[in-house]
Amino acid sequence: MSELSGTLQYFKGLEGVAVTESSISYVDGVRGKLLYRGFDVEDLVEHSTFEEVAYLLWYGHLPSEGELCELREKLMKFRKLPEEYLKILKTFPLDVHPMDFLRASVSLLGLFSTPDECGENTRMDCAIRLTAQLPMLVTIFHRRRMGKELNLDVSEKLGHAANFLYMLRGKPPESMEETIMDKALILHAEQEMNASTFAAVVTASTLSDMYSAVTSAIGTLKGPIHGGANEKVVEMLEEIGDPEEAEGYVERCLAEGRRIMGFGHRIYKTYDPRARILKKWAETLVNIRGGRAKRHFEIAMKLEKAVTERLGNKGIYPNVDFYSGIVYECLGIPKDLFTTIFAVARVVGWTAHVIEYNETNRIFRPRAIYKGPMNLNYKIEKSKR
Amino acid sequence: MSELSGTLQYFKGLEGVAVTESSISYVDGVRGKLLYRGFDVEDLVEHSTFEEVAYLLWYGHLPSEGELCELREKLMKFRKLPEEYLKILKTFPLDVHPMDFLRASVSLLGLFSTPDECGENTRMDCAIRLTAQLPMLVTIFHRRRMGKELNLDVSEKLGHAANFLYMLRGKPPESMEETIMDKALILHAEQEMNASTFAAVVTASTLSDMYSAVTSAIGTLKGPIHGGANEKVVEMLEEIGDPEEAEGYVERCLAEGRRIMGFGHRIYKTYDPRARILKKWAETLVNIRGGRAKRHFEIAMKLEKAVTERLGNKGIYPNVDFYSGIVYECLGIPKDLFTTIFAVARVVGWTAHVIEYNETNRIFRPRAIYKGPMNLNYKIEKSKR
Repeated sequence: MSELSGTLQYFKGLEGVAVTESSISYVDGVRGKLLYRGFDVEDLVEHSTFEEVAYLLWYGHLPSEGELCELREKLMKFRKLPEEYLKILKTFPLDVHPMDFLRASVSLLGLFSTPDECGENTRMDCAIRLTAQLPMLVTIFHRRRMGKELNLDVSEKLGHAANFLYMLRGKPPESMEETIMDKALILHAEQEMNASTFAAVVTASTLSDMYSAVTSAIGTLKGPIHGGANEKVVEMLEEIGDPEEAEGYVERCLAEGRRIMGFGHRIYKTYDPRARILKKWAETLVNIRGGRAKRHFEIAMKLEKAVTERLGNKGIYPNVDFYSGIVYECLGIPKDLFTTIFAVARVVGWTAHVIEYNETNRIFRPRAIYKGPMNLNYKIEKSKR
Repeated sequence: MSELSGTLQYFKGLEGVAVTESSISYVDGVRGKLLYRGFDVEDLVEHSTFEEVAYLLWYGHLPSEGELCELREKLMKFRKLPEEYLKILKTFPLDVHPMDFLRASVSLLGLFSTPDECGENTRMDCAIRLTAQLPMLVTIFHRRRMGKELNLDVSEKLGHAANFLYMLRGKPPESMEETIMDKALILHAEQEMNASTFAAVVTASTLSDMYSAVTSAIGTLKGPIHGGANEKVVEMLEEIGDPEEAEGYVERCLAEGRRIMGFGHRIYKTYDPRARILKKWAETLVNIRGGRAKRHFEIAMKLEKAVTERLGNKGIYPNVDFYSGIVYECLGIPKDLFTTIFAVARVVGWTAHVIEYNETNRIFRPRAIYKGPMNLNYKIEKSKR
């Protein structure tokens, strides 16, 4: 993929280029493995919690009981947003995409954080603060547009995932729901140098602040070929409508050269380990809940079969976005919020990478290969117009 | 700078890596030349206007009279911000850095742009809209914090630069002031794949929207080693205080390994052509205006001499940020607004690159070289805590 041009090497999309050294996560795209700080994500999903995994990703080691307790308390304390800020936030328009709302509300939140709170020495505090705040912003938006009362009491007994579900739906989640949301957040917390994490690091590489970095990441995650994909998957399942139509849909997409949402990954050339876990939960949940989500799961199974039969030998398998939407559907979450859940989890990875990158910082300043004209003269060209 | 690790090549800060092909601008770092679409920027500064250069950068050719007229009219029309938006904007806090305000206000503005206005087919309109809006946001912020009345009448007879100065200072600029602001905007409009432009392109590479891309760029430009540098230069000149102290300051910085603001550039290894032009204007202006800016210019001259004598053979020369601050000082603009002027100009380059990149889009997905532990087991590690 590289091409020499003068002393430059050209890498479209930066495929095969390492932009930093990192000890945060390791993706083995051939064996389908994802490690967070050396731990297999499947091990963490089985035994750990989102808060503990966040600690691990930020600090590089598992917390002691005391350390975990302190982090939990901070995450709860920081849920409380400044009064002056809330007053402004409540005037934001609501007929917009939740990711746009989230980008704008995080960017505004930066105006309420003093340099002391977010300076170079306290970037970690800023990371924890943002992780506590993001779910609040999503739920404030959703409950306002539903015309439902805001319950901003800090629900001190609830963990991160449980509180998110509680705020979103207005009632405490069942234990299984809480568990599944917690594990979904673990699975989405970190994925090395994906586009949104990279955007956060590029922004931070000019020594800009953490709110700017996370704002960039949210705007980047929004795109339909990145975080926006989980929403598009459910739209596709709705469009197909019937398991019997799945194979024909795949055939048509292939014939027309159209992308099939939720399949393929730049790094994973086998089954995405996150997709495997999410598929299992989706199956468990749809069998309990039934209804539309069950139909979507049936269509998804047929789609997976049709796609992998045709493209599996090319390394095309379901990715993390393929089954996550069905899981969220079962939790009663509307599909336009799916990408915001991704952000609520991934903010840990974004901020961990920003903190790590700044330790040996170098500003990003790539080049472009110039393909335009040379030596044009203004007066001569102007006389031609 | 590259290092092989498995099949990855590692480029810290992406030095020497081309991330795209582009026909927008060409930087010759050895000869100290900058071309916009094939035209030497010195030629454009001499003969063209900001509006015409913006057209050139976006569309790839100089406009006819009719085309230029149409663009000017659009830029005037789009100065008018939605009433509902202004109502919210006026509640934003004012004791913040202007770049944070700008980032938050652009991000919010995205909520008031319909998908039709900013969809893939109308990205050009969105670029023009943002270029018209950015100066308005800066001036609204500044006049509000000064406690001065807002004059939001669309000043239909004023060009882009003149209107910006008018809004900022509340009185129509003199002809020379207008000319110099116009030319400063031309000089800052585009500079290939600098960090903020790159951030915009990374965000847009997920097919996210133009407001998200420009929001990322603003947050990135804010950093003190990117756009924030012109403000830091004037702070440094104030700190030095006396031309006689300049040489000693340079000696101390070199001895302590501290960065001297406004010198050196990743690409230019000779005199930055933009710095050469800005220096000439700074000299003209300080001789008319005198006062503090004149003293700053005298210090700057001594600094330049001391630095280039010592580091010129290493390719360290004044960059675009070194003299721009003194020019803005002469125009009566407070130093914390300098970086916003950079944004007001560079939004043209940001949006031109986004439009160009999306034409042959590929999502950015670089890698990191993993340096952490492998094969850790949760239960074993947990038992150690």
